[in-house]
Amino acid sequence: MKIDGRDYRTIWLGADGCTVQVIDQSRLPHRFEIVTLATAEDAAVAIRDMVVRGAPLIGAAAAYGVSLAMIGDASDASLERTGTLLNAARPTAVNLRWAVERMRRRLADVAPPSRADAALHEAAAIADEDVAVCEAIGDHGARLIAAGARQGKDRIDVLTHCNAGWLCAVDWGTALAPIYKAHRQGLPIHVWVDETRPRNQGASLTAWELAREGVPHTVIADNTGGHLMQHGQVDLCIVGTDRTTRAGDVCNKIGTYLKALAAFDNGVPFYVALPSSTIDWRIRDGVNEVPIEQRSPDEVTHITGLTVDGRLETVRLTPEGSPAANYAFDVTPARLVTALITERGVCPASESGLATLFAGEERAA
Amino acid sequence: MKIDGRDYRTIWLGADGCTVQVIDQSRLPHRFEIVTLATAEDAAVAIRDMVVRGAPLIGAAAAYGVSLAMIGDASDASLERTGTLLNAARPTAVNLRWAVERMRRRLADVAPPSRADAALHEAAAIADEDVAVCEAIGDHGARLIAAGARQGKDRIDVLTHCNAGWLCAVDWGTALAPIYKAHRQGLPIHVWVDETRPRNQGASLTAWELAREGVPHTVIADNTGGHLMQHGQVDLCIVGTDRTTRAGDVCNKIGTYLKALAAFDNGVPFYVALPSSTIDWRIRDGVNEVPIEQRSPDEVTHITGLTVDGRLETVRLTPEGSPAANYAFDVTPARLVTALITERGVCPASESGLATLFAGEERAA
Repeated sequence: MKIDGRDYRTIWLGADGCTVQVIDQSRLPHRFEIVTLATAEDAAVAIRDMVVRGAPLIGAAAAYGVSLAMIGDASDASLERTGTLLNAARPTAVNLRWAVERMRRRLADVAPPSRADAALHEAAAIADEDVAVCEAIGDHGARLIAAGARQGKDRIDVLTHCNAGWLCAVDWGTALAPIYKAHRQGLPIHVWVDETRPRNQGASLTAWELAREGVPHTVIADNTGGHLMQHGQVDLCIVGTDRTTRAGDVCNKIGTYLKALAAFDNGVPFYVALPSSTIDWRIRDGVNEVPIEQRSPDEVTHITGLTVDGRLETVRLTPEGSPAANYAFDVTPARLVTALITERGVCPASESGLATLFAGEERAA
Repeated sequence: MKIDGRDYRTIWLGADGCTVQVIDQSRLPHRFEIVTLATAEDAAVAIRDMVVRGAPLIGAAAAYGVSLAMIGDASDASLERTGTLLNAARPTAVNLRWAVERMRRRLADVAPPSRADAALHEAAAIADEDVAVCEAIGDHGARLIAAGARQGKDRIDVLTHCNAGWLCAVDWGTALAPIYKAHRQGLPIHVWVDETRPRNQGASLTAWELAREGVPHTVIADNTGGHLMQHGQVDLCIVGTDRTTRAGDVCNKIGTYLKALAAFDNGVPFYVALPSSTIDWRIRDGVNEVPIEQRSPDEVTHITGLTVDGRLETVRLTPEGSPAANYAFDVTPARLVTALITERGVCPASESGLATLFAGEERAA
């Protein structure tokens, strides 16, 4: 997508062919900086510290991380060690494990001298496939947005939580792909952007990328969506997901469940956009089976922003000595999800619904 | 309640007998400062800028504001002008209008030369009555907390939203009064404190006052409560209210509705603590009849905190040019409220429930 008129992806192979470049998302929206990853350790740190974040991008970054390891040491031990290292970087994201496993399988039967080259090709394929998948999600979802337009209303109000835009993927995004498609089709779309505490991915990333593409939007505190839905100011919700169970339960950024409850209570459609790589076919009950990452309390007690004189400054929000807890995700039960938007089409959030689109995958699990 | 071992109220008559002193709540938790109000304009600005905030305290501050006006000019015109000025300071708070009206009625038949004295007495009476009311709410609510303790659990987890502690009242508070009572009774209480964006009254005020009183607590992002309730980590919720309809609909800080939905979905009791002065007997349907204050978008886009070197600094969180909206309250329908805790006891959140405790008031409306 566009930044200052130039097309970017979130991750790409450096001109030297042996490093990888990524947009540093921990510095947005106040600084636009490119970071170079030279080793698998660099990739693991970038994933852990959320320099790159978002389920699909984490997968692509992990794939490139394996490639970087193979450039330095293409042994079986290195492949094994790198997989373990990368898998540990974020415990909840299923794409991470999916991408690492795909790389391992691809490289298992390749002789070490050819592994670096094969790995780079496979990582590029993962990235390209992700772009195609996200664009397909965009096309399917844009039709739902068009259908959600209400007579007598001069704009279509979509609420989204966290950042499931092109910054979370390689391009297009998941939840925002339908919004970009609808906007480019000329639909009068307006996005309510949940700021998404504690890391503010909505206020910092979603707002930033919507602005770059010229999509009208308004940032709101996470507390606001229920009120807007009670007053007919939201036509539909679209969010992403970090892991979806085979029964359609959706693990996404903490607070998603609260918005789904409000949507259900007010008859507002609640859609979840996902590449099928985020489906975990092994589990059904999201609330009880998905491990929820707990992150540093500092992310709740401190926040970074831009001072009036242009410095990035971190400030403490809480009284000294008051502890904080930081659960990163929650699970929205399938009963609250109107439909899932996948690269293969739209389906009910249920085992039978997913089976209509992914019969083979379901059987394979 | 205690600050550094010394008992404070949130508002009191200055030693000079003609000014009023308040704790500056806009500087907490990082600075503890006392502000002197010398005129009704000072009081109106303190209410508008949330130097004083919380329904009961706003009422007391408005009453003292009328007193300050009477000290300077005790004419009918001054009384009328001051009422209009103060009522305009915060559009949603029903206590503001209640207190102004009570002062007007009390002073209407008093000759101007005696009005300043009568006004100061009436304002002191309003403050003292508020303390008694809040303490009664505390006693009634503490019994519900004790009843909410579950076997096999070594602590009682209470979730609260915003600040309905003693800082929002003259003393004790509303939602926190039962918590203080339960804590002083030796119950093993722990409070999940919603930070309460955008103004962070939970992270700044509730955490601060709980810490001063030694009540165990943990600050969480507003997005977190649903997840905690899904996992049995909340035994009950208690919140305050800025306005309650005669049917039991509750207008409280934005985001309260989302927590009530989560509590209902998980079978967690959801209590609302209120002095009866916050009941608006004229209306039934909260969602459609309570006007919701919209405040400056700057409260969403910017935040103030403490730098590592001890300065209060304001930083911008959003990209330049991304608009924000700032709805200050939402309405929780009575169907989601387990019970109301008032100074007269506990009752169902319904017209008939309230009638059991407030038959006279209901008829008078």
